[in-house]
Order: sequence, then structure tokens, then C-alpha cells
Amino acid sequence: MTHRLSHPFDDDKLHEECGVFGIFGHPQAAALTALGLHALQHRGQEAAGIVSFDGRQFWSERHIGLVGDNFTKPAVIERLKGNRAIGHNRYSTTGAPVLRNVQPLFAELAGGGFTVAHNGNITNARALQRMLQRRGSIFQSTSDTETILHLVATSQRNHVVDKLIDALGQVEGAFSLVAMTEKKLVGCRDPLGIRPLVLGDLDGSNVLASETCALDIIGARLVREIEPGEMVVITEHGIESLKPFPGKRPRFCVFEHVYFARPDSIVEGTSVYEVRKRIGAELARESPAAADLVVPVPDSGTPAAIGFAEASGIPFELGIIRNHYIGRTFIEPTDSIRHMGVKLKHNANSAVLKGKRVVLVDDSIVRGTTSVKIVQMVRDAGAAEVHMRIASPPTTNPCFYGVDTPEKSKLLASRMSVADMAEFIRVDSLAFLTIDGLYRAVGETGRNPLAPQYCDACFTGEYPARLTDHENRGEVRHLTILAESA
Amino acid sequence: MTHRLSHPFDDDKLHEECGVFGIFGHPQAAALTALGLHALQHRGQEAAGIVSFDGRQFWSERHIGLVGDNFTKPAVIERLKGNRAIGHNRYSTTGAPVLRNVQPLFAELAGGGFTVAHNGNITNARALQRMLQRRGSIFQSTSDTETILHLVATSQRNHVVDKLIDALGQVEGAFSLVAMTEKKLVGCRDPLGIRPLVLGDLDGSNVLASETCALDIIGARLVREIEPGEMVVITEHGIESLKPFPGKRPRFCVFEHVYFARPDSIVEGTSVYEVRKRIGAELARESPAAADLVVPVPDSGTPAAIGFAEASGIPFELGIIRNHYIGRTFIEPTDSIRHMGVKLKHNANSAVLKGKRVVLVDDSIVRGTTSVKIVQMVRDAGAAEVHMRIASPPTTNPCFYGVDTPEKSKLLASRMSVADMAEFIRVDSLAFLTIDGLYRAVGETGRNPLAPQYCDACFTGEYPARLTDHENRGEVRHLTILAESA
Amino acid sequence: MTHRLSHPFDDDKLHEECGVFGIFGHPQAAALTALGLHALQHRGQEAAGIVSFDGRQFWSERHIGLVGDNFTKPAVIERLKGNRAIGHNRYSTTGAPVLRNVQPLFAELAGGGFTVAHNGNITNARALQRMLQRRGSIFQSTSDTETILHLVATSQRNHVVDKLIDALGQVEGAFSLVAMTEKKLVGCRDPLGIRPLVLGDLDGSNVLASETCALDIIGARLVREIEPGEMVVITEHGIESLKPFPGKRPRFCVFEHVYFARPDSIVEGTSVYEVRKRIGAELARESPAAADLVVPVPDSGTPAAIGFAEASGIPFELGIIRNHYIGRTFIEPTDSIRHMGVKLKHNANSAVLKGKRVVLVDDSIVRGTTSVKIVQMVRDAGAAEVHMRIASPPTTNPCFYGVDTPEKSKLLASRMSVADMAEFIRVDSLAFLTIDGLYRAVGETGRNPLAPQYCDACFTGEYPARLTDHENRGEVRHLTILAESA
Amino acid sequence: MTHRLSHPFDDDKLHEECGVFGIFGHPQAAALTALGLHALQHRGQEAAGIVSFDGRQFWSERHIGLVGDNFTKPAVIERLKGNRAIGHNRYSTTGAPVLRNVQPLFAELAGGGFTVAHNGNITNARALQRMLQRRGSIFQSTSDTETILHLVATSQRNHVVDKLIDALGQVEGAFSLVAMTEKKLVGCRDPLGIRPLVLGDLDGSNVLASETCALDIIGARLVREIEPGEMVVITEHGIESLKPFPGKRPRFCVFEHVYFARPDSIVEGTSVYEVRKRIGAELARESPAAADLVVPVPDSGTPAAIGFAEASGIPFELGIIRNHYIGRTFIEPTDSIRHMGVKLKHNANSAVLKGKRVVLVDDSIVRGTTSVKIVQMVRDAGAAEVHMRIASPPTTNPCFYGVDTPEKSKLLASRMSVADMAEFIRVDSLAFLTIDGLYRAVGETGRNPLAPQYCDACFTGEYPARLTDHENRGEVRHLTILAESA
Repeated sequence: MTHRLSHPFDDDKLHEECGVFGIFGHPQAAALTALGLHALQHRGQEAAGIVSFDGRQFWSERHIGLVGDNFTKPAVIERLKGNRAIGHNRYSTTGAPVLRNVQPLFAELAGGGFTVAHNGNITNARALQRMLQRRGSIFQSTSDTETILHLVATSQRNHVVDKLIDALGQVEGAFSLVAMTEKKLVGCRDPLGIRPLVLGDLDGSNVLASETCALDIIGARLVREIEPGEMVVITEHGIESLKPFPGKRPRFCVFEHVYFARPDSIVEGTSVYEVRKRIGAELARESPAAADLVVPVPDSGTPAAIGFAEASGIPFELGIIRNHYIGRTFIEPTDSIRHMGVKLKHNANSAVLKGKRVVLVDDSIVRGTTSVKIVQMVRDAGAAEVHMRIASPPTTNPCFYGVDTPEKSKLLASRMSVADMAEFIRVDSLAFLTIDGLYRAVGETGRNPLAPQYCDACFTGEYPARLTDHENRGEVRHLTILAESA
Repeated sequence: MTHRLSHPFDDDKLHEECGVFGIFGHPQAAALTALGLHALQHRGQEAAGIVSFDGRQFWSERHIGLVGDNFTKPAVIERLKGNRAIGHNRYSTTGAPVLRNVQPLFAELAGGGFTVAHNGNITNARALQRMLQRRGSIFQSTSDTETILHLVATSQRNHVVDKLIDALGQVEGAFSLVAMTEKKLVGCRDPLGIRPLVLGDLDGSNVLASETCALDIIGARLVREIEPGEMVVITEHGIESLKPFPGKRPRFCVFEHVYFARPDSIVEGTSVYEVRKRIGAELARESPAAADLVVPVPDSGTPAAIGFAEASGIPFELGIIRNHYIGRTFIEPTDSIRHMGVKLKHNANSAVLKGKRVVLVDDSIVRGTTSVKIVQMVRDAGAAEVHMRIASPPTTNPCFYGVDTPEKSKLLASRMSVADMAEFIRVDSLAFLTIDGLYRAVGETGRNPLAPQYCDACFTGEYPARLTDHENRGEVRHLTILAESA
Repeated sequence: MTHRLSHPFDDDKLHEECGVFGIFGHPQAAALTALGLHALQHRGQEAAGIVSFDGRQFWSERHIGLVGDNFTKPAVIERLKGNRAIGHNRYSTTGAPVLRNVQPLFAELAGGGFTVAHNGNITNARALQRMLQRRGSIFQSTSDTETILHLVATSQRNHVVDKLIDALGQVEGAFSLVAMTEKKLVGCRDPLGIRPLVLGDLDGSNVLASETCALDIIGARLVREIEPGEMVVITEHGIESLKPFPGKRPRFCVFEHVYFARPDSIVEGTSVYEVRKRIGAELARESPAAADLVVPVPDSGTPAAIGFAEASGIPFELGIIRNHYIGRTFIEPTDSIRHMGVKLKHNANSAVLKGKRVVLVDDSIVRGTTSVKIVQMVRDAGAAEVHMRIASPPTTNPCFYGVDTPEKSKLLASRMSVADMAEFIRVDSLAFLTIDGLYRAVGETGRNPLAPQYCDACFTGEYPARLTDHENRGEVRHLTILAESA
Repeated sequence: MTHRLSHPFDDDKLHEECGVFGIFGHPQAAALTALGLHALQHRGQEAAGIVSFDGRQFWSERHIGLVGDNFTKPAVIERLKGNRAIGHNRYSTTGAPVLRNVQPLFAELAGGGFTVAHNGNITNARALQRMLQRRGSIFQSTSDTETILHLVATSQRNHVVDKLIDALGQVEGAFSLVAMTEKKLVGCRDPLGIRPLVLGDLDGSNVLASETCALDIIGARLVREIEPGEMVVITEHGIESLKPFPGKRPRFCVFEHVYFARPDSIVEGTSVYEVRKRIGAELARESPAAADLVVPVPDSGTPAAIGFAEASGIPFELGIIRNHYIGRTFIEPTDSIRHMGVKLKHNANSAVLKGKRVVLVDDSIVRGTTSVKIVQMVRDAGAAEVHMRIASPPTTNPCFYGVDTPEKSKLLASRMSVADMAEFIRVDSLAFLTIDGLYRAVGETGRNPLAPQYCDACFTGEYPARLTDHENRGEVRHLTILAESA
């Protein structure tokens, strides 16, 4: 899946591509799944889908747009009959989003219905697809997730859980997925555990979700994280835990802590909000600044800014105000006023900034285009000095594990030194968190270079899972693949 | 495909399920395909689709609704790039129509793209589907046509035309189809030739269409009919004709002459309009009536009524006026005025009917519900006598070859004698054309009972192609098949 | 109201602009009004509206599109509470139709609610509008009908019926209207009676409608026509007939007989179908042709063609087949195939036409553009000779009384002699009905040139009602009037 | 205008009803107006409209929904031709919003076009409406603003500015409006100056806007506030300032400081953000709490919470996380999970709250329903104590000057003492800011009870402008007013 960013005001962020949810054995299964997906909406806003099973038949609703706009009419929820369901949020892609790519995907196998929702990215999807096509499989979507479906359908094993193990054994990359058959709800994380997946309990019903905030919203209790390489199989008789894949050292995505996860989620036993405050404190220690104010770039920079302010003793102020009513489709009206872009989302609070030395805290720099505009806006509002502090190391490499990143040449930090970046975005000083500082903030004593504890490929270029399709990208025969407008 | 009727005012007609069109080597391929489908709109009004190929990529547009409402915006046609295209009209089904069932269907095979549009019905589709699912094929639609796609995808032969021959060799039932690969446009009729398919020529470009009226609209010349069992393969180098299937005696659908085909089409070398006039003349000879007027039930009964009037010398009059502005969704507003239903489409022309003995000519009687209302309306308008004459034999059996028919028990003629039917619909006399009269009208000397020249199963119950799925219908395991609202 | 034609295939016809309906004292008032408007759909297809009154409050539904597409959902009808209602059909205009122009129009007067639906055109609407604006009236639509509303609102008389009489006494032009207050349903025709309006009875409930076909559909009985210059006031206590305007000699629109009215309507005591057959017979007598077939241009030319065939003894044949599935928005796909336009609606039945001398019967010629294409199509289908016979005199002048006509310079007959027209449309002979022939067909002995019995201004240029706005059209100050897209 | 709240998660807030904007003499007038309205979106989210004038004609676009969703397509902005424009945001009301109520309203007066956009509420609108209807005026909307239009239209004065002065001289209540004629852009505030209106300058073009944040977004400079009772008339020749109304002591709405205005706006020469921080500091002084954390109810409580934290020395923490992806239509899926409502918008950050004594800061309490849920959520997350501090005095009275408030009996503070409220919402302590504390925060030494410096009727019940319609509300004859669904 090659994804690019579509929202004109978010184009300087990395974006998580998906969130998943599943619940087994609750009379309100579809409604609770809708609530869970709503809480996971930050992981994907393009489209959402839910598939339920009522003991006889599967029911599906998949819609372009927000959960809150599509899954709240009673008629929609009532069509999703049954006491078990899985759901999926999908991130916004370039061009017209296509409904057939919206998950959960479903297949009627010879042995019955099978449906899957996937967070992550399969790095050998194209290679597997070509193999399957030669066997006679017909692909209906351009989603890497469909590969899993065909591998299951064509597996020679007898039982559906074994077929799924067989299928996942062939895929490389990152997957945290939920799947459902007529009898079972399955949750599984890849052996590296790159993407998160947690197990919860709601009055005896088992729940699976990408983050704990989706448990909070339905009032479920966190039981534990699904472990890297673990598959849990939930039936009417309870949960069974399998470890079907060869063991690997886990490499959880450290950027989940920096930006992707919601601050009120508990990830790897730690509060994301507390990690981000600690990141801010590390930053203040590593790269202090003589300043009058600490100002976050809202909202993602706020916890780190609070941490920076506390550690440095410099007051925290809302120097930038966010407009919450962006709308779905705001385009800068005409070329001649294009420079106003960033003001559609943010406005400088000049009463606070005027004449002040400002520490501006943001979570990361991707292309740098928005940073340039925000710094200019802060200066126009009268700031005397702008010291930018970034709550992560320089982002120098793209992610291939389910995150929407520009190609390497578009990443500012891959093209410039920190000094050049400071000049480019016109700040008086610029500093990034060190990689060891980041590891300290997440509770390590530092990065173990021989066996890094996290996936930090976007900062280091060390990719823990093979990139088969990326390596083969020059050799592939041109597909005749269908273009369809709807 | 089990289809049922959806339009509240057409519920006493049989309906053709599809029309197909293809063109190779014309710079206006998509626009001409849209025109051809428009001319074939009487064969299916639910949805339409076009797939084109531009030498590099396939382009697809599929829409619910009329060709004239969806395929006329320049932007739509311009998206369908390339000098070759195929298209399909689909008949309206019960319930929400689902886009994934709209043809042409497309698959990216290992050897390249493949797309198909099909008129007819495969009578062993469910049996083949179960076999393919056991092999690992995943079905995305409930269309019987998808079976062909999977048979092609999984064929072990080397070339795509051979794969298609392999696939079609396994299907039973009726098919007149057009298919397109990166290099070829293919047209094929089943060995019985149940549904029509003609070959045309437009300034050197080859054209395929269900009926000649689709050639007329683009100014193409009729070359000939595709023969039963014939496959034509059109490339840049010309046309090749294959006869890959075991020879059978052709059994063209006689109901195409009675009702399905447009009166301005030439079918089997004969004008449909002239056949219908001859049917009316046969009726006048077989079952004359002492009357003052011949009145058609518009518009399908009109040619037969003209033929009846000419043969009998009784004046032809428009005793029933049709409202052309029915809209797409007219529902009878409330129960208390439900009996007005038929008046939404038709009104009696009382100035003509008052005090007169009327011969009312209709093409067929299916359920009889509309006939009852029309006769009542004609009587209310003051007709002294109503003599109903039907331009076909009694419809006693459902069609399984691509026509939307009620089950046998709903067919009035399967439940009642002609005398009882006359009483039921409250006419002074009722007569149907004899089966031999029908064969005479189409140019035979009569029906050959040992080797009938046509498929007339709806009148005789003699089905020329096996009905495997129908025979197995009790044994099939319940599918868990997905229900989706969009 | 300046209207122009919008449908690409109807651009060679004149079009009636409106139909009206009203009913008082029936529990199904709104549903019956929807049915009545459906039967009057030929008088206007752009938009429709219904206003009902439930004894306490008025309810309104106005929608762009067909009655059958908008007024058949139970929810819509149920919102239109009450036992009395009025309704209106509006003809399609150029550009985006605007909901605020859709009738019935409504005003909350000081004395209570007032709503009106109007068929016709007020020829001094602009002059009245300027006078009212100087008084302080604010117009919300560009509809001439709103003028009536403001004249009623600002009338100094005491009772609403007197206010309406006061208002209508100031307007010139044509109006057949229905109006409703909290207590009354009012129907009124202008003193010349240019547009039709009939009174019906449905089980004791009074009904008003533009044509009798709207009575037929609800099973109502025709009581009588509203007389020119008559106002009927319907209350719970019955009907009162007023004659509030100075008497004039009636001048009913003769084109209602030629084309506008539905053939199954009774107009001025005569069947429209019979009049049209008599027109065909007159044509055959006045302008016979040596030919093999009489072919109507469907559907409007069909009754006259039947009359021509009967009178001449030449067989009637369907030599042109109409496509009933035009869709709402068919645009000729690209310039290079623009000449196919007419084929989207009609196809020549070449089996009938080949080698034959054809009498082609149409109701009228407006611009002549469609005639050229139809004749060409008939010739291309092999006709040996084409003799065109028009069921009305040459249309040389625009209508200002509620009909959508091109300006005079666009009317073919105002620019050319009959001989030149014959050459232009490439027929072997061309003949129009004489004006006296037309008067004979409607039951007169001929036209009385001193006191014509009908409004025939489109044929003669003699306008019976003043054209104040048209005469002043050069003097009017440019309005700043608002343009709005929705 | 009686408004009620529609968004299920905002139902415990007061809501400003409108924002206005105008610009004269800029080639990008419509695009800049769209940007200005976007910056004012917090003042109204139901609908927005823009009217421009191109020297010859007015152009209008009015749409239901956000500015960002409707006014950003280039086609929309390009239709709004001309170098001057006015615009309006409207707050969301109960039931289907109706386009004819969306401002700017427009009228074609005898002297030319006139358009107006209004923030505020006319408290004698119904009385004026009855008077105008007796004169013959026809109202098309239920908006109080239309009254101004009719008063202008019927004014006997000669020039349009004099007509507007005449009209506004008759209205009571609050108005800050922008109006436009063919030659002039007009801005005006009522004599009390209840609602804000500022004058800006963009490279020589004059700009009017409700708040300075709308100047910031287009890069305009704040010139000054329009004074209470002032009318500015902007033409090609510059600005003229009039004072046409009898002088009154100004009474600006103090709640604009508390909640309505954006924190980055400058109101009455003061930063709203700074006022809110001072409010928090006052609260900390007036009603300190022994606590571990200060937590805002986001986002409106945040500046006051920062002020409270700074003044008290208690750390500021994000103890409640807001979900930014609510969607437009989220409904609580089913009754059985209705209690989850508040979690759709907010989630407690339990890692921060667990075991802590929390000061919860919110801007106001209206009905109290949301406060109950938020406190419960904070307690469920483990807070040891909850001390609620409200950044305004108890809201005991409804607003009649352009704010959407529940009736008095629904306001929690009008029904309960502070002690009872504390028990009702289950907090360990509850304190409101005193009215004098509020006046101190806005820069006064306290409230002058004899001549209050602000409108504070919602806290004190002292209404500075007459409430004619409210006083007459029992006497009004029932209107027959039309109900329309679209």
C-alpha cells in the first residue's frame, strides 16, 4: 500500500494507517465496536467498517468518512446483527477513496465466512500477490490485506485457524490484526510486535483493540497486551493463546509513543502522556533555551511542552490557538492567498507572544513545510526569538510498516543538517531529542545498538523486517490494473 | 441469479436481464459503447458499466441507474480512455442494487487484465462456485458471471482465449458474452444460441451487440449474427471465428420475438416489428372477435394490435393512453388508494371506448394482476364488451436462461384454464396465440415437436439446457454469505 | 418569466409551463393531489409542490423533479397533513432550477396564511413588480406569480377573497389558478379563459384541475369547466360562483388541442384525441399525398397520423420507434458524434420504411432542427419519398401566455416560406394544416377573423391580452437581482 | 429567534448565534470573506453565506454546514464575483435547518439591491413583524433579521443609508451588522454595543468583522472597534462615521470574554486569553483548593486553568483528553449505552488522575448535565478528590440578545444553591467566580451596581434592552405559518 497524505493542513505529519477492534459475546457488539472505532479515529479517518456475525450470517457496513458520521444512525447499527463483531479505521489516502479497499475484508471460504481487519503493512504483499495470481486467485482490491485472505483461502490445511497461521507464516512486515469466523474471534500480532494490540474484558466479553482508549470508551478493563508473535483464539469456551511463529526479539514502534498513540492510552504498561512529558523534560535537559515562554504546536506538541516547561521552569502558554472547525475539504481558495494555508488551522496568540523569547515545541519534523509557516506566523505575531525543540530525533527514513510517510528525499532531515534546517525554518535555535534521550523517556537506559529494543527505523534506517517488495520495485511487470472512479 | 421484479407497474411482464456491447479499434470507443448501451436499455435498466483499454491500462465506470443518467457527462466518457471497450446493461432486481454485481466484471490475471460482460444465465453456477471455493477462489459478487472469471483464472491452459474456451466448456445454460483482454475483443454465444449477439462494422471497426438497434444508433452496418456455439476473436489483425464447442441444434429464445427485442431490431434476419404484426394477424385468424375497435395495451402490444386490426379490418385506436413520466420510484401513496396503481401508468381514453366492443391486445399474461386492472379501467370507461387477445401462448413455466420470471406457481396460466383466466380477468372472451401460430409468425410452418426450432420452455416446459442448480436446490449447505447495504 | 428549453431532445417543441390541482374536504387530500399532479406531469416536469392545511397550520413540500420521484414516499405525504391541498407542476427551465421559484407560493398575510398555484403568464408582471417595490414589497422569486401574492398582501380590501379579486383585476395576461386560505379553496380563470381549469367531484369533495385526466386518475367525476372570468370559492358550506371581472369574449388556447393537453382529456366538452384525429383527417383532405405508409413522429403525432391514415386509406405503421429510457440528463457524448442526437430518442424502423413512400405526421414545427434530423433518419433507413404533414398551421409567433417558446426569429415558419421549409428539412413535400382546417377540427365552421373564437396568436400574431412588459422591455432599468446557485 | 441546542455533546454550553464579516474594494473579496468566516466559525456552525457585488449584479452562495466544507471549492468562490462582499455564520438550531433562514438576506429594493448579515437578536421582532404584515409585507423566513429588511424596504426616507437608520431606530435588542448596497458597505452596532464589531484594514481595503481573529487570518490590521451606536459607511471615497442613535452607556456582553470570543481575539483592547488567565487567577485567590493537579475541561476551560495553576502553584495537567473526530452527527448508538455520551468527546487520562486531588476548571455551568458526567469520569479514573472551579458566576438567567440559552427553569444555578449544585454534580467542593471577580478580570475595579459597565444579564437578570416580544408572548395570535421540510 503506497499511501500519501491528503489533508492540506496535515501534510507535515506522519500518519498511522489503521486501527482495529473486535468483541465477542456481547449483545451490543456492533454498537460497542462503533464506539471503539470512534476512540481509535486518530489512527485513520478516511473510512471505517464493521462486520458482525449473528450465528447464521455475516453483516457488513463499510463507509467512507468518520465513524461519528456513518455508524451512529440506529438503522446502521441495527443492520449489524449478532453478538460478535470486528471493525477497522482506515487512514485517508490520495485520490478518491475506494470502498472496495475499506476493511474488514470478507471472503466466503469453502468452510464458511472469514473476515479480517489489519493494522500494519505487509512488505512482501506484491510478491505474494503475483504468486497467488499465477494460482488463479483474483484480487479485488489494491489492499495488502487481501493477500492474507487469499493465502487463507488457498491454504491446504484443514482448520481455519491453521489456515490463518499458514498464511501469516508467509507474510513479512507488520501486522496487528483481528479476524472472525463463524465460531471464533482471532487476534494476532507479528513476531516483532511492531503495531500495538491489547486484550480487554467487558463484563466477561473479550475485547481486542489497537489501544486502551478504545477499552476506556466502552468501560472495558485492560487485561494485557497481546504479545509479539502471539495469536489469541476466542470462542464461546474462552481464550486460547498460541505462539505459532518462530520467536524474535520484539521491536515495538517507538513512534507510537512520540505521536501515533492517543495520550490517554497505556502502551507497553506506560502512560503515553507521561512518556511525552518525560520526552519534554529530556529535551529541556539536553537542549535548554533562554526563553520567556514554552508554546506547544497544538495539539500533538502539548504534553512535551508541559514537560519542557516543568523541567525548565519556563511558563507554559497557549501561544498558538487551533481552529477546531476545519471541515472535511478546506482548500486554500485561490493561489494568490495560498500562503494563508496554515492560518486555517492555527492562529498566533499575539497578546502572549509579542516581544517574547519563545520555545516552540513540536513532536517531529517531516517535510518541514508547516514548520516554516508556523515559525513565520509566530514571528509575525511579534515573538522576539523562536527556539524550536522537537520531541523526537530527526526523521530521516520512511516507514514501511503501516505508516504513511513521504519518500526519503522528501524528508527534511534526510536532506539537511540540523544547522541547515534551523536556517531553513528560520529559527534562532533548533534542537531534536537524541535517540538515547528518546529511549530514556520510554524507560530504557538508552538504545542498545546491537539489539535495539524498539523499531526506530524512521530515525536510524535500521529496518527490523525484510522489505521484499521495496527491494524488487524495479523488476515488476507493469500491471494492467483497473482504474475505477467509484 | 434469482431475480425478482422491482418496478411496481411492470410487475406483470417478463424481463430480459441484460444487454452487451463491444467495439474494437475506434477512437470514440467509450462514447459509442455508451450509445450502444442506451439503445439496449430495454434489456436492463438497473445499472450499466463500461470497461475500456488504452493499450496500457483498463478503465472502468459502473453505475446504478440509466445509461442516459450516468454515461453522458463528458468527464465520465473521458475517463474511459482507449480505442476499445465493452459494456453491459443490467436488469433491475429486488432490494438495493449492489455495485459489485454490476458488469463488466474485471480480473487481473497472472497474464494481464481480463473483463467480461454476459447476457444469459449459467444454470450450474452454484455447483461451479462450490468447486472453485474448495480450490481457494474468493467470490466477490453474487453474480453467476463471476464463475466464468474464476474458471478462466484457474484454467491450466496457456493462452487466455484457450482459458476462456476451457471455462465456457464447463458452464451450462445460456450465454451471449463479450470479453476483452489487453490484445483481444471476444464475442461468444452458447451452443444453443439462446440469447442474441450480432457482429457489426463501423468504418472498419468491429462491433458486437445484443441487438441491431445498437448498431443503428452508432451508424454501424450489420455484418451477421454470431452463430450458436461460435466464438469470434477480434484483434488488430482482424476477426477469427472459432467453433470450440460440440455442435448442437440451435434453440433461439422465441420470446425475444414476442416481447424482449426492440421492434426496430432485426433478429435472425427478420424484423421484430413484422413478426409482431404477423403474430397479430395470426391471432385475428385464429381467434377473431366481433368488435368495433382494436386497442393495444401500450406500448408492447401495439405492433400486434396493428397486425390484428389490419387482418380483421377492425379500426385500430389508442384506447389507452400511457403516462411517460412515471419517475423512478413511484409508490402507490397509501393503502386506501392502492387500487389506483395501474392508472399511474395508463389511463383509459373514454371518448374512444364508450359504448364500444373492444379487442384488447397484449403481448403476454404473467401473473395476471395488471390485466385485471386494465380490463376494469377499460370497462369503467364505458366499453360495452372486452375481448382480450394475447400475442403469445399461455406462459406456464419459468425461464432459467437469463429472464426474470416468477416461480411457476405465480404464473396465472400454470394455475388456470383459459376459461378460468377469462373469468378471473373479467373479459367477455380471451384467446392466446397457439404455439404453432407463433412458429408460423416467425417463419416456420409450425413447431417441430421432435426437434423444436426455438427455446419455448416458458410455453412448453421443455428446457433445452440442463438446470443443475435448480435440481440441486434442496441439497445446498446454507451459506454464511455477507449482507452489505452498499 | 422568460423560459427556455432544457431537454436536448425536446428542443423542437413548444411547452406548456404549468399544471394546477386543488381538493377540499377529503381525508386523503395530499395523496390525491400527488396523483392529480402525476396525471398532469406533461404540463411541467421541472418541479412540483403541494401545500396542505390541517385546520391550524399550512404544510408545504416543494421539490425539483418528477412527482413520481418526490411525492410518493409515505413520509412526504404524511407530512402534508389536512383535508385540503393545492398543488402545482412546473416546466423545466434553462439553468439550475431554483426551489424558491417552485409553486405553490405561500405568504403569511396579516389575516392568515395564503397560498397560490398558477398556470399561465402575467404580461404586466414586471410593471406591477416595480410599483410594488416602490411601496416596499420585497420579492423573493423571479416568478410572475409572486406578483399576485404581493397584490393580495397590500390590497386595502377587508376580506381575502376581495383582496384576491382586487389583485387579479390589476393583472393582464393568462391565469388559471388555485388558491387556498384557512377557510377557502379558490379557483379562477382569466376573462379570456386562455388556460384550462375544470371542476370535479370525488364523493362530495370538490376538486379543481387543469385537465380532466387528473380527475380520471383519482376517480373523480367531471362537473364542468370553470368559465372564463369565473371565480369559484369552495368552503365547508359548498361552492359559490363569482363573476368579478368585466366580461370578455373567451379566447381559449387552440394549441391545447393541438399538442399541450393529454389526448385522453376532455377539453371544452370535446375529446382531445378525437380532435387530433379530425385534424389528421382534415390534413389528408387538404393536402393528400401519394404514399405507401402513414408514419407518426411519436408520440405527439400519433392521433393525427391515425386520423390521416383512416381518411386517406393509406396504412398506419410505426416507422419510428421511441426509446423510453432517455434518462434525465443525456448529453450527446462528444462533438464528433453530435449528429446522433435524435437517435437517442428515436430510431427508424427500417424494415417498414425501406423503399416506401412515407407520409410523416408531426404536430408542429418550431425551430425545425429536429425535423431535419428525423427526415434524414427516415431517408437513411431507405424511405423512397418523405411527405411531411404538420397537424397545425405554421408557428410564426411566440406565446406570452404561459408557454415556453423561442423568440420569433428562431421560429422556422417566421423566417421561411413553406417551400423553403420543405427544402430546408429535405422532404419531397410539406404541408401544414390551414387555420380554418384547425378551426373545423375543433368544431367551428372556420375562423371568424373579426372575433376569433380561440387564442391563435402563435399562428396569427393576434394577441388577445396586452403585452405590457414586452412593450416596455427596452425601458427597464437594469435590476441588480441576486444570482444564487441553490 | 428561539434557538435550541442540537449537538448532543455541546448541550451544556451557551452558544453565540452568529459571526459577520465584510470587505470593500479587494479583488479577492469573496475568498477573503470565506477565510474570515472560517476564523469566526466558533460563533456559528450550522450554515454560512456570502453575498458579493460586481458593480452590476449581486451574487449569493448560502449553504448548510461549515465554511470549510462549502466555501472552498474554486467554483463556489469564482461564482461570487466582485470586489466587495459580506458574509455570515449561523449557529446550529434544532430540527432541519432551512436555507431560507441562512444569511446574508437580500432584497431588491426599488432603489437597488440591499443585503444584510446580523449578529444579535431583535427583541421586538415579532411586534414589528405584525405591524409590517398589516402593511402588506410578506415574510419569507422566521429570522428576526428579515424584519430589518422590511423596515428598510418600507421606509419613506429617500436614501438607503437613511432608510437603514430609520429601520434600526425602530428595533430593540442587540445588533452588530454588516450591510451592502450597490455603492456602500455599512457596519453598525446597537447603542449598547452588546455584540462586538471591529474595523480592519488590508492594504487599503476596509474590513469589518465580529472579532480580530478574522482580521488575523487574512493578514489585515486592526484599526479600531466600531463604537456602540456607531454606523460606518464605506464607499469608494473612504469611510464615514455616523452616530445616528440617541447615546446610551455601553453594555458590552461580558460572556464574550468568558466563553464566546476566541482566545486569540482582542476584544475592547484586551486579549481574551489574558482575561481568561486573570479569571483563573481570581478564582484561585477567591476559592483556593488543596490539590495536586489543575485540570481543564478542554478546550474552553484551558486558559482559566493555566491562570489558576500559575496563581496557585499547583501543576497544570491534561487530565482529560479530547477526541477531535466527533463527526457531524454522532448519536449515542442505543439506549443501553447512553451513559457513554460524554466519552465520545472526552476521555479521562487515568495515568495522571489516579490517586490525585484534582481542581477541575470549566468556564460555566448551564444545565449541569455534562458536569455530572465529567466528574463521574474523573472519579472513575481514580481521582481522590474533585474540586470544581467555574470561571464565571452562576448562570441564572437566559440571554435574549443573540445567544442560545435554555429557558430559566433549565439553568441549574436558577434552581439550586451552590451547595446543592456541588452535591448534584458530586464534587468535593464547588466554587464560582464572583461577579466582582469577573469585573476585576476584565479590568474594572468591580461591578458598578448603579451603572453596570457590561451586560451581565445571564448572571444578574438585569436586562439592558427591552424584551418586548418576551413580555407579549402570551398575547400573540397563533400563526398559520408554513412548515416546510427543505
